[in-house]
Amino acid sequence: MSATWGNKLKITIFGESHGSCIGATIDGIEPGIKIDMDLIEKEMSRRAPGRDNLSTQRKEADKAEIISGFFNGYTTGAPLTVLIHNTDIRSKDYSDIKSIARPGHADYSANKKYNGFNDYRGSGHFSGRITAPLVFAGALAKQILKEKYIYIGSHIKSIGHIEDMKFSENDMNRYTFARLNEQRIPLINEYLRQDMESLILEIKDNGDSLGGVVECAIVGMDAGIGSPFFESVESVLSSIIFSVPAVKGLEFGAGFDICKMKGSQANDQFYYDEDSNLKTRTNHNGGINGGITNSMPIIFRVAIKPTSSIAKMQTSINMYKKENIDFKIDGRHDPIIVLRVLPVIEAVSAIAVLDMIYSENY
Amino acid sequence: MSATWGNKLKITIFGESHGSCIGATIDGIEPGIKIDMDLIEKEMSRRAPGRDNLSTQRKEADKAEIISGFFNGYTTGAPLTVLIHNTDIRSKDYSDIKSIARPGHADYSANKKYNGFNDYRGSGHFSGRITAPLVFAGALAKQILKEKYIYIGSHIKSIGHIEDMKFSENDMNRYTFARLNEQRIPLINEYLRQDMESLILEIKDNGDSLGGVVECAIVGMDAGIGSPFFESVESVLSSIIFSVPAVKGLEFGAGFDICKMKGSQANDQFYYDEDSNLKTRTNHNGGINGGITNSMPIIFRVAIKPTSSIAKMQTSINMYKKENIDFKIDGRHDPIIVLRVLPVIEAVSAIAVLDMIYSENY
Amino acid sequence: MSATWGNKLKITIFGESHGSCIGATIDGIEPGIKIDMDLIEKEMSRRAPGRDNLSTQRKEADKAEIISGFFNGYTTGAPLTVLIHNTDIRSKDYSDIKSIARPGHADYSANKKYNGFNDYRGSGHFSGRITAPLVFAGALAKQILKEKYIYIGSHIKSIGHIEDMKFSENDMNRYTFARLNEQRIPLINEYLRQDMESLILEIKDNGDSLGGVVECAIVGMDAGIGSPFFESVESVLSSIIFSVPAVKGLEFGAGFDICKMKGSQANDQFYYDEDSNLKTRTNHNGGINGGITNSMPIIFRVAIKPTSSIAKMQTSINMYKKENIDFKIDGRHDPIIVLRVLPVIEAVSAIAVLDMIYSENY
Amino acid sequence: MSATWGNKLKITIFGESHGSCIGATIDGIEPGIKIDMDLIEKEMSRRAPGRDNLSTQRKEADKAEIISGFFNGYTTGAPLTVLIHNTDIRSKDYSDIKSIARPGHADYSANKKYNGFNDYRGSGHFSGRITAPLVFAGALAKQILKEKYIYIGSHIKSIGHIEDMKFSENDMNRYTFARLNEQRIPLINEYLRQDMESLILEIKDNGDSLGGVVECAIVGMDAGIGSPFFESVESVLSSIIFSVPAVKGLEFGAGFDICKMKGSQANDQFYYDEDSNLKTRTNHNGGINGGITNSMPIIFRVAIKPTSSIAKMQTSINMYKKENIDFKIDGRHDPIIVLRVLPVIEAVSAIAVLDMIYSENY
Repeated sequence: MSATWGNKLKITIFGESHGSCIGATIDGIEPGIKIDMDLIEKEMSRRAPGRDNLSTQRKEADKAEIISGFFNGYTTGAPLTVLIHNTDIRSKDYSDIKSIARPGHADYSANKKYNGFNDYRGSGHFSGRITAPLVFAGALAKQILKEKYIYIGSHIKSIGHIEDMKFSENDMNRYTFARLNEQRIPLINEYLRQDMESLILEIKDNGDSLGGVVECAIVGMDAGIGSPFFESVESVLSSIIFSVPAVKGLEFGAGFDICKMKGSQANDQFYYDEDSNLKTRTNHNGGINGGITNSMPIIFRVAIKPTSSIAKMQTSINMYKKENIDFKIDGRHDPIIVLRVLPVIEAVSAIAVLDMIYSENY
Repeated sequence: MSATWGNKLKITIFGESHGSCIGATIDGIEPGIKIDMDLIEKEMSRRAPGRDNLSTQRKEADKAEIISGFFNGYTTGAPLTVLIHNTDIRSKDYSDIKSIARPGHADYSANKKYNGFNDYRGSGHFSGRITAPLVFAGALAKQILKEKYIYIGSHIKSIGHIEDMKFSENDMNRYTFARLNEQRIPLINEYLRQDMESLILEIKDNGDSLGGVVECAIVGMDAGIGSPFFESVESVLSSIIFSVPAVKGLEFGAGFDICKMKGSQANDQFYYDEDSNLKTRTNHNGGINGGITNSMPIIFRVAIKPTSSIAKMQTSINMYKKENIDFKIDGRHDPIIVLRVLPVIEAVSAIAVLDMIYSENY
Repeated sequence: MSATWGNKLKITIFGESHGSCIGATIDGIEPGIKIDMDLIEKEMSRRAPGRDNLSTQRKEADKAEIISGFFNGYTTGAPLTVLIHNTDIRSKDYSDIKSIARPGHADYSANKKYNGFNDYRGSGHFSGRITAPLVFAGALAKQILKEKYIYIGSHIKSIGHIEDMKFSENDMNRYTFARLNEQRIPLINEYLRQDMESLILEIKDNGDSLGGVVECAIVGMDAGIGSPFFESVESVLSSIIFSVPAVKGLEFGAGFDICKMKGSQANDQFYYDEDSNLKTRTNHNGGINGGITNSMPIIFRVAIKPTSSIAKMQTSINMYKKENIDFKIDGRHDPIIVLRVLPVIEAVSAIAVLDMIYSENY
Repeated sequence: MSATWGNKLKITIFGESHGSCIGATIDGIEPGIKIDMDLIEKEMSRRAPGRDNLSTQRKEADKAEIISGFFNGYTTGAPLTVLIHNTDIRSKDYSDIKSIARPGHADYSANKKYNGFNDYRGSGHFSGRITAPLVFAGALAKQILKEKYIYIGSHIKSIGHIEDMKFSENDMNRYTFARLNEQRIPLINEYLRQDMESLILEIKDNGDSLGGVVECAIVGMDAGIGSPFFESVESVLSSIIFSVPAVKGLEFGAGFDICKMKGSQANDQFYYDEDSNLKTRTNHNGGINGGITNSMPIIFRVAIKPTSSIAKMQTSINMYKKENIDFKIDGRHDPIIVLRVLPVIEAVSAIAVLDMIYSENY
């Protein structure tokens, strides 16, 4: 049931798609951080809808209002609460869809959990919109991590069947990450962009949707962060990444492909380079051994399913009449949410990394 | 750092490979559960080493001694603590390997985290052996779940390049699960067994190791269990599954393959069957919508890397002399740990499911 | 650092005295509770300032705005977030008092903890005003407890040297509690009211302040709620009661007086009454044995210190110049906060009891 | 239900009075602490029974066996688990007392909570004996705190009606604490010792028991430790102190007496002394303002009830026959447990302080 995540850095989220506002309380942030509002707005705009023809036409300014924990431009150390007002709410009558369990959505499972009392308008508390405050918190975390020379970047590993290459050693640095951060479809191989855009627009015209894979890397973490077992780096990251709606898979380093290697291949051989820095010759373990960082880049890939809301006729059920039905949802949908989930993945990863670092010190 | 997992059902693990014993404290278990010791022993023997030529020759009886929370055959409701004594400890001198960071192992990352104070003998607290108490706890959880008509089963989805088929609807039931539970290499397609055994023995002779994928299913859960966001079924399961050493990937339902589907394919259409039971025509979402169960089987696959300990010459570092070295580890190794990790995956899943159910009630 | 309290029912508070609003997120509340807004407003008005000449003249409507988790009059099961806007903020210049550590206040300790970044205006996040959202949450908890026939009541046990009698068996019931709830100075012995009012007005004229003791009782709890050790009823209640600003002492049952009894007196003898209900002949243990309820009323007393803000000349320090100073605070102060803390004590007790009950079920 | 306490330093306790052993897992302790076993044994012997004629004749060596997290004399950083074997268990038949709810004990409330499945022998998990592992953990915490120049000391403030004086400024230092630590009845005014001993022996001859008050002080804490609200120093300390069996009251600084002061008296005036150290002229707030340390000594008093087990005829109930009875318990009882609870109060305070300090760092 918990709306709160974290050990030392705790984040609590709230709000519903059609309420007056959504938000988050971030507890445990250091006092004295000068918040870079431009950075935050930029990160939030990466997730915001209505940017272009690749996303939903619902327009939300996603303007963050900090109401607590912020004074004279700095964090105070008190709980930092941010509100994001819902502005573009269509006041249409939702009563006709109240009883329909849209496939791929939480309508049925939520109805069961909450005995029908959940706010069903626009998916209510299940709306992807609730990730906006996570992006706010993540932007703040990123800013603090930057001071510790820790950087997070990601790109679209695939959309549908179009595959970008994986991060190579040369791509995992603040400069490439900054470049990717600017792109609407962040790609290592930029020649794929045109194909991907065409595919998205084609599926959009068709009233259908696409999924994809996001690859994310974190560089600059010292060796020794994390824990064996329950708070392994993989556990902590997975716990918050699988909190992001639409995520259905997560793999670290070589991931599922490591299962096809022999031990002699999968083992990343350690060595000291000329400057006596520890390195591994490969990074199949994604920078993590025994749940703990080894100072190599942390790499992981996240599977994101196609947008559940599509403009096609579907079969489903009327939960109240208990009967099978055909139906079609009108409305404004993202033909693909992968582009908008990508900054959320970065954000929650930043939150998790900062919490792990904060939790490490005695 | 946390050795404790869970909300209402809390499990704390402790111990090191070469200490006198390892164990766990299980807090929050209902009073009045008549513990089925045979079932527990059977589950523990599935994980135990030394069963046959497919696993390490280290022999551990893995006999569980309950020292708290158990009285006259029943759980008391007080914290239940179990000890498992380490019996087959070779008293060889470990000082020569103290300084070597074995590739794929936590030697280096742990040394950094613990400033060199960690018990390095036999991987210390990072040993896969620490999962034995998890299997104990999982067996107890399974017993309680059985009373609620919830069953967990799994099979080897792949070893190296040999692929078993996925669970079909017909396989996900208590009878098939019971059959799989009896098998040394649990398979849907049993014709693959001979090939897999041959492959394992071949790699063993070669001093190398193999990885693989475990597929797990949970049936019988009511709709409405789980939460949006931070305690989604995926989050909770992933947090404990990624705690299991050697796990590098996890996917639910169609997993990474869902990224190649269109929304119209990925959406599992709901319908009521003749008995008015809710069903979905496909189960690409693995029984989970919006983080909450929909009553269909929960399905997931876990990527397990090849055993890191191999009998081949490898290159690595001496952490204390800060120099690059060649070395070879002697000792008793599993040519493949997938077979022994499989019951651990079932166990931690049972713990997670029981905690979610316990946490659901007001 | 934690702004969040609770196991299954989690409450997170935020806000500062001079920000735009304060509030709380209540997570884990049952869906389908029809919120009684009148009851909530009434409870909040018990704590609100500016009611009469016995409290500060700062006037705050303390109107609660629910922005999440509430739909069509019922709780949805999603996190319930409430905002309370700060309306009567005097926009005076606080810079002159920024450097003064007011005695009895958190100015100095907060300055040290937050390295001077804390919002010092009107005590910032340390303001007693932050208890308003706790009263909101407590009123909601009380409403749910009432459905379970659990009632909470309290009275002023003492103000300065004027002592009311303790709760007798006859006073601990919903009818007396309802009567006490209506009173500005809730008393068992109502003849003391005039004396207490005179004393308060006298001290107010004198620019000084008073403390007092609140006695609280909870009736209707079944036997078997609570835990040995870390989640004993006393531990759980104390943890949230000592969170209330100005609380310096807490005792259960006979409290400190039990130390002067012999065991033969202190032991509450059990018996079954004519209707076979379990009773104890005395209640020196305050309805709790071994940390667990025994079905008798839970009784406790809370020591509340005099308001720290007084209108007298005091000596203190200038934290920035590091020098000793004389100073006098002007402004609107409560001559006694005990009257306003009393509903907060009831509120946090209700939150704690509901969390304990929610946490009890498997 | 929780057997686990703490944020960053987590302690989990287990065991029952008549099981094979009791113990604790301490998670989150720094690696590299050279454990001072003599110090630990000494602290444990302060709590151990059978020391002299002032305590029960049950003799328990209370020898701690560390089975995890300890290697070559140092903490490893892995969970540290300690076992204490139960040696002096009288194998008498407990079946005759199974059904009796002893007054002052948890027999009835536990029976309700655990549906009769709790181990009732020797109070089972409710036995004061379960505090022995807390003393172990506390001794370890004390050792670490000593390195930070933080010291904890306590004395018997009262037994029955005999009152020692309160801690004066001159008594709160490591030298006086060391002297008190050596005393069987630690007192500021040592002239009272003879009277107290006589009183205890008299009550013992009489088959009855006594309670008392422990006063505890913590010196050396920097200003800025703690939090407003839910993790105030008072909340954190109270939560673990009220976990200790027999504690019925707790007050900080002037405690309940502060309610009789005026604000102008209760406010501790700050000043800088000649060396520019911050001091307060009085310490009625017990070193805590707004939940946060101000660098002055933390002072509190704990009310401990008389031993519930007495050798007198009492009236009570047979829980199974549901009838009122007369009964008398034979056995070995403490005429007063205050002397043995005192080191437990110091221990849990040390645990709490260390956790607060660990939790403070970013």
